[in-house]
Amino acid sequence: MTKFDEATQAIRIDETAYDVCLDPGYAIGGPLNGGYLMAVILRAAVDASPFEHPVSTTAQFLKAPAPGPARVEVERLKAGRTVAFMRARLVQGGVTQIECLITTATLADVSPAYAEEPGYVMPRPEDCLKLPDPKPESGMTLNAQMELLFDPPTVGWLRGAPTGRPESRAYFRMAEPQDPDPYVLALAVDALPPVVFSAGARGWAPTVDLTWHLRALPAPGLLTLIGSGRLVSDGWFDEEIEVRDSRGRLVAQSRQLARVGRG
Amino acid sequence: MTKFDEATQAIRIDETAYDVCLDPGYAIGGPLNGGYLMAVILRAAVDASPFEHPVSTTAQFLKAPAPGPARVEVERLKAGRTVAFMRARLVQGGVTQIECLITTATLADVSPAYAEEPGYVMPRPEDCLKLPDPKPESGMTLNAQMELLFDPPTVGWLRGAPTGRPESRAYFRMAEPQDPDPYVLALAVDALPPVVFSAGARGWAPTVDLTWHLRALPAPGLLTLIGSGRLVSDGWFDEEIEVRDSRGRLVAQSRQLARVGRG
Repeated sequence: MTKFDEATQAIRIDETAYDVCLDPGYAIGGPLNGGYLMAVILRAAVDASPFEHPVSTTAQFLKAPAPGPARVEVERLKAGRTVAFMRARLVQGGVTQIECLITTATLADVSPAYAEEPGYVMPRPEDCLKLPDPKPESGMTLNAQMELLFDPPTVGWLRGAPTGRPESRAYFRMAEPQDPDPYVLALAVDALPPVVFSAGARGWAPTVDLTWHLRALPAPGLLTLIGSGRLVSDGWFDEEIEVRDSRGRLVAQSRQLARVGRG
Repeated sequence: MTKFDEATQAIRIDETAYDVCLDPGYAIGGPLNGGYLMAVILRAAVDASPFEHPVSTTAQFLKAPAPGPARVEVERLKAGRTVAFMRARLVQGGVTQIECLITTATLADVSPAYAEEPGYVMPRPEDCLKLPDPKPESGMTLNAQMELLFDPPTVGWLRGAPTGRPESRAYFRMAEPQDPDPYVLALAVDALPPVVFSAGARGWAPTVDLTWHLRALPAPGLLTLIGSGRLVSDGWFDEEIEVRDSRGRLVAQSRQLARVGRG
């Protein structure tokens, strides 16, 4: 069991409740990372489902839960022959923190009938950039859990040279060697700095809701995260992440709606 | 009040329940159109929310409700200063048919800070194609409610010449004159024939879940629907619709996960 497996563990209490312990090692400043929290919730929801994979997950981020014990409450809304619909909520101190709808199924590892080619060719990993380690007082403990190698222009904002478009692209893997799986993908779809940083925005950009789809089971190796946004307006922006595995196959697609920071 | 306003009306019973009457005029064969059903649910959810607009909607399509009376049950999960999180479910005969998470806010009509240009230039409406009227016995009553003018290659599948890619593009307006609003957009994001028809698939392609975001309030006039998909694999496909208003502004983005038909 890897550290990530352990940090996302959900202990079954009964058919509808799981105990979890939110790990302070996945913090982004004060709050915990939304992708990590989704991974925790998905452990419980998939365990309670008759199928193996979370093919669709929507999370509404109502509150920012604190590290420590919490509970995942699950409800099986309907289970059919190939698909089950689940509801899951992360509860802490009696208050719902995150509300989810999750669709589960069992994906087979087959050749796709149609697959769009990647819309962007990444530079080689050795030509990509790591971000500097965050200061300990920043509370960015998440960074130590994963390795991100950025397409250089998309971190130009760090040295005052944003590209002017919402975008962020990087290779991704867990710091502790571990093959990517659906839970790692839940982390990956919320792992990049907000795409609006490249459009010149700064500061805390809270996710309001996020939906991601698991499209195929990832092969071992580096993941590629291609992040973009189409509209920044009235304090809102969309962030879309496409995740491809080491074979170049599309394994996850996400879109989140978030608020532009005032930093 | 237009016919569509009437067909999507939700009558408040109390804080948590609304009576609705599902209109047989929005059928696609046997079942009712998913976009129409979302519009009905959104009427109730927005009424029960302190804000004016459904900025994010996720729907899980558990069952296919029948025309006639039904109920929308709503629950306000959290209401903050700028955003409220709602849960809503369409119930018929005591059984949940559709389960939703809806985020509401009040959008202002402002100039965007960043707006991606449309990725595709549509031909002029006069160079686009209408589909032939469905036969009465097909039960496709939805078609009479709206006018769709298709980008010709994307309906090549009708005459046995699919493009080979999942895609569908059309201008959209309601048949009865009505300015587009968020409820019309809910219909619009599920109004096109499945994008997989262009990739050679046929037959009933049921939506499993659909998430759409309202990004701006649409200007009067024709809407443009740009539909695509990235992966058709293991019987699943994604369908993404981008909706632009008559000013060319991005007003809605959707992604649905659906099953490939066996027709």
